[in-house]
Amino acid sequence: LVVAVGEHVGLDEISCDLLWRHAGRQTPHDDVGEADWHRVEMTFLVNDRWRASFPVTELGRYVYTVSGWVDRFKTWVHDLQKRLEADQDVRIDLLIGADLVDEAIGLAAEGPDAQRLRAYRELLRSDASIHERSLAALQDELAILMRRHGPRRFATIYQHELPVTVDRERARFSSWYEMFPRSASPDPSRPGTLQDVIDRLPYVAALGFDVLYLPPVHPIGETGRKGRDNVPSAQQGDVGSPWAIGSRHGGHKDVHPDLGTVHDLERLVAACRERGLELAMDIAFQCSPDHPYVHEHPEWFKHRPDGTIQYAENPPKKYQDIYPFDFETEAWESLWVELKSIFLFWIERGVRIFRVDNPHTKPFPFWEWLIGEVRHDHPDTIFLAEAFTRPKVMAQLAKLGFTQSYTYFAWRNDAWSLREYFTQLTQTPMVEYFRPNAWPNTPDILTEHLQYGGRPAFMQRLILSATLAANYGIYGPTFELQEHVALRPGSEEYLGSEKYQVRHWDLDRPDSLRDLIARLNRIRRANPALHHDRNLHFHAVDNPALLAYSKATADRSNAILCVVNTDVHNTQSGWVHLDLDDIGAPPDHAFHVHDLITGSRYAWQGSANYVELNPQVLPAHVLQVLAENRTERDHPTYR
Amino acid sequence: LVVAVGEHVGLDEISCDLLWRHAGRQTPHDDVGEADWHRVEMTFLVNDRWRASFPVTELGRYVYTVSGWVDRFKTWVHDLQKRLEADQDVRIDLLIGADLVDEAIGLAAEGPDAQRLRAYRELLRSDASIHERSLAALQDELAILMRRHGPRRFATIYQHELPVTVDRERARFSSWYEMFPRSASPDPSRPGTLQDVIDRLPYVAALGFDVLYLPPVHPIGETGRKGRDNVPSAQQGDVGSPWAIGSRHGGHKDVHPDLGTVHDLERLVAACRERGLELAMDIAFQCSPDHPYVHEHPEWFKHRPDGTIQYAENPPKKYQDIYPFDFETEAWESLWVELKSIFLFWIERGVRIFRVDNPHTKPFPFWEWLIGEVRHDHPDTIFLAEAFTRPKVMAQLAKLGFTQSYTYFAWRNDAWSLREYFTQLTQTPMVEYFRPNAWPNTPDILTEHLQYGGRPAFMQRLILSATLAANYGIYGPTFELQEHVALRPGSEEYLGSEKYQVRHWDLDRPDSLRDLIARLNRIRRANPALHHDRNLHFHAVDNPALLAYSKATADRSNAILCVVNTDVHNTQSGWVHLDLDDIGAPPDHAFHVHDLITGSRYAWQGSANYVELNPQVLPAHVLQVLAENRTERDHPTYR
Repeated sequence: LVVAVGEHVGLDEISCDLLWRHAGRQTPHDDVGEADWHRVEMTFLVNDRWRASFPVTELGRYVYTVSGWVDRFKTWVHDLQKRLEADQDVRIDLLIGADLVDEAIGLAAEGPDAQRLRAYRELLRSDASIHERSLAALQDELAILMRRHGPRRFATIYQHELPVTVDRERARFSSWYEMFPRSASPDPSRPGTLQDVIDRLPYVAALGFDVLYLPPVHPIGETGRKGRDNVPSAQQGDVGSPWAIGSRHGGHKDVHPDLGTVHDLERLVAACRERGLELAMDIAFQCSPDHPYVHEHPEWFKHRPDGTIQYAENPPKKYQDIYPFDFETEAWESLWVELKSIFLFWIERGVRIFRVDNPHTKPFPFWEWLIGEVRHDHPDTIFLAEAFTRPKVMAQLAKLGFTQSYTYFAWRNDAWSLREYFTQLTQTPMVEYFRPNAWPNTPDILTEHLQYGGRPAFMQRLILSATLAANYGIYGPTFELQEHVALRPGSEEYLGSEKYQVRHWDLDRPDSLRDLIARLNRIRRANPALHHDRNLHFHAVDNPALLAYSKATADRSNAILCVVNTDVHNTQSGWVHLDLDDIGAPPDHAFHVHDLITGSRYAWQGSANYVELNPQVLPAHVLQVLAENRTERDHPTYR
Repeated sequence: LVVAVGEHVGLDEISCDLLWRHAGRQTPHDDVGEADWHRVEMTFLVNDRWRASFPVTELGRYVYTVSGWVDRFKTWVHDLQKRLEADQDVRIDLLIGADLVDEAIGLAAEGPDAQRLRAYRELLRSDASIHERSLAALQDELAILMRRHGPRRFATIYQHELPVTVDRERARFSSWYEMFPRSASPDPSRPGTLQDVIDRLPYVAALGFDVLYLPPVHPIGETGRKGRDNVPSAQQGDVGSPWAIGSRHGGHKDVHPDLGTVHDLERLVAACRERGLELAMDIAFQCSPDHPYVHEHPEWFKHRPDGTIQYAENPPKKYQDIYPFDFETEAWESLWVELKSIFLFWIERGVRIFRVDNPHTKPFPFWEWLIGEVRHDHPDTIFLAEAFTRPKVMAQLAKLGFTQSYTYFAWRNDAWSLREYFTQLTQTPMVEYFRPNAWPNTPDILTEHLQYGGRPAFMQRLILSATLAANYGIYGPTFELQEHVALRPGSEEYLGSEKYQVRHWDLDRPDSLRDLIARLNRIRRANPALHHDRNLHFHAVDNPALLAYSKATADRSNAILCVVNTDVHNTQSGWVHLDLDDIGAPPDHAFHVHDLITGSRYAWQGSANYVELNPQVLPAHVLQVLAENRTERDHPTYR
């Protein structure tokens, strides 16, 4: 029955609280009492939706949930108002209200609140006029006291505790520069050292980066060492891959003697800090056959029936210079503890950012445990997952604790693909747990686009990564010097890859992109709109070769609009159809956009505006929308 | 590292099982062992998606989950194939395989499987040729044996058990007819009885319905009884609302003496069954002040400070003829048990379908418990929730156990709203738990559309409910006789509502819609496409007053296409743009559609076809797509 008999029911008022607490290492199975939670009153919005927020003041893990209950007193106040409006006799109702207050007194601790509640109860039960007693019943103070102390009988609590991980700001906004230390020597006659990296810091800082990431700095194995360009056997003097970790000089807690010492690394950490940079180390959990672990802990490796240790394979390919750890070993617990101690070793030496090699080839529970343990004591650590693998595996690694993730960005080269991919990254639930770190190149990834796209491709990919993603990085100096020759057609490997040999780079070459890089990093720092991923918004363009997108702060005081020509060969032009609200531009006046790369200014009006981009000159506009210049007369040329 | 060092890893083969069991009354907290599950091997599809199915052969509750593990043997076979293709030496690999088989032998019980595994192990370790041993390793039989007995070390299991509720078919496909027994008398000088309802069954069966639903048949209270048209005080002879349950003649387990006896109700249940009908009872958990519970169990009601019992209210309105149960009473447990016993009382008398009045005004946990308890012993019971309330509340009632739910259908009258609403009901996750039962009218709902739309509105709403929803119902004889006068403008109450007075109906009136109703119910029975909700598909029409939709069986052997003119006043015409695949029509030939209401046939071709509907004549086509007539030559007129 809807109306006649049914109308009386189901009109109870509901109250809801958000419950939250800092959870630290606590697991969902720990016993949590009512007193462990902070409570925030939730506000009703519409259609059974409620809202509340809570402040996060510490790094680490918070959890929250919600609780709701039938609020007898709120229902009573609501009904009383309607009865009074209808001039009904409310004498009995006032007594019912007094009983509700009485119940709250019984639950409140002795103190000023209990005193005030007692005063209200007495007034409601007194001989004062109905008018006076009704006024008292409707007092805000009484509502607040009753919300605080009233019974929450049969309160229900949402059965899941929802986690919130609080990271420091660099987890959300960072600019990475990767380089091989052994290629950092200014003297072509000798390989580079950590001291050379320290000497290179002014260059990296001038480029505007804030994270310096080095491939593994540990001793490199000799057994099965690969030669230049990954040929199966090394020649005399070949230096080997830094990812073939471990030799008679030590393992994951040692520095390659050619690079320096652990003390040098500590000096590098300090030197970075002085320049506003932070060192990121590479953690690759695998061993060369010469790694001390192989002899000291044979139980951490898989053994073949012929007594040899199982090397890495992707049949029919064999990687006899690499022994993977056997995560299914009976001795997995001691293996886990040791691997954790590697992180702690470098954390003690000042490192807080780790780029983790191939995390998807180790068990999920291992990473969940390791990152949880490390972050419990060091919540300022940042873990970048290098998992170029299936989407669901990348998502799972992000969910279980990795702070940032590499992406498929390098292979998204046309406007449609870029829009689809970054929409997925920033406008779906992925944005809640997956922080993209966009790289146009890495030592493993020289895309066909960069191989054949020339200087326009490098400029375009740089601008895209630096403006689409709040976290981005480049692998240099190959990037700024536009290294683009692959090992062979169809390969994404560099010819003469630094992975297998020492290189020397002429950083001062006139065709270097260093000025553009430095300018983009300055633009990134100066514009808070670029420090976030969630605020990415794509705009329509009538030319499918063009990509238009913006990022703006919530109050629109800072808005950056980018238009990129994804065609590396031809000038493309078209009309951009702007969503003006999203860039804080007025619908009814002209406004100005300032190209932060070239310094040009344009007076635009309305949604549709014309753009033309010659990739040989500059394949993109990075425009600041100048909201303060709302009419033509505000433009400098009119003043 | 992606390629060089990294390529070897993360290539383990995975195997997955679906685990399922009939769960009965078992709660998720019960201890469930490995042996309680049936296992089904899952098939890998793409991108980390797997598929499996399991048969449900019993009514009631099943649960399922999934388990996955690294399958060492499958990985080994996969690698071995690649090694053999590359002509590598596999002697050591064959020994590794033998060790894997050995491990499975240790896990398999003694028997033929263990014997076969032993034979494979010996062959793999034998001096036979590499070729012979490799062939053995790749045998399907070995793969099957190893899948069955191989270790599932470190298997992970999805942490949630996902429920599947299995209902009987009438839960999914049913046609309801509601009528007031006291208005069933053929003699205008006396009110109807249950015997009169038995005498009315041939009429209801001829209309083609399979569920006969009666409002409450219990004794009606006298205290505070409402008069005709819901006036506050009854006159002598006024019969009161059947939802004001309970008098000196008894309560929820009794039959109103004017209607008959409990035995008469049992006779009605049997008579329905003989006609292919099933009786649905109305369960309304509320009492008149005269209900025996009020005296026998005052603890189940709320008491006011003046000693009176709290009547129902929606301030400032008072419903002093109704006492709601107090579900927050200290005595809630005895109340719950008694209310459950009401269902069991009528189940013992043969009733299996219950229409539950206002379930949203009672606690969710109460219904979850009650329905779970009742269905554990009587899994063939069907519960229809009459909760015309907020969307999330309706969804929650369906999730916690209600079999069917009333909908907002009555108020969705234009084509756009109908399409939006039924898309939500059938093409979103709602379809997994919420079974709509669409009613154009009820004793509480005489919509403005029916009040002012005339005969076309009744025809249109009938066809829409009978073809859009697999479960539907009408409130008769008001519907077939097109009762359309409201109590007052703006009200959805009937003037002279049967809720408050006895009515007599002339079923043989020539303007009755009985023939159209009977035809529609015959169409519903004959066409399996109409027995489901999930298969609803909307097609584009270039006239916004027209709505086009189809339902087809999975193999397209039965496909029904409806085109409805939602304008009750004007003839509307337009081009329907059919998704031919969804109706099994050929893209390249003409096909025929057969109007199942009028008997007309049309030869159509391609996607775009013209339709014109005069609402005064018939506001809709209900077309069967004749897939067997694939060319013009197949048409009867060509033969």
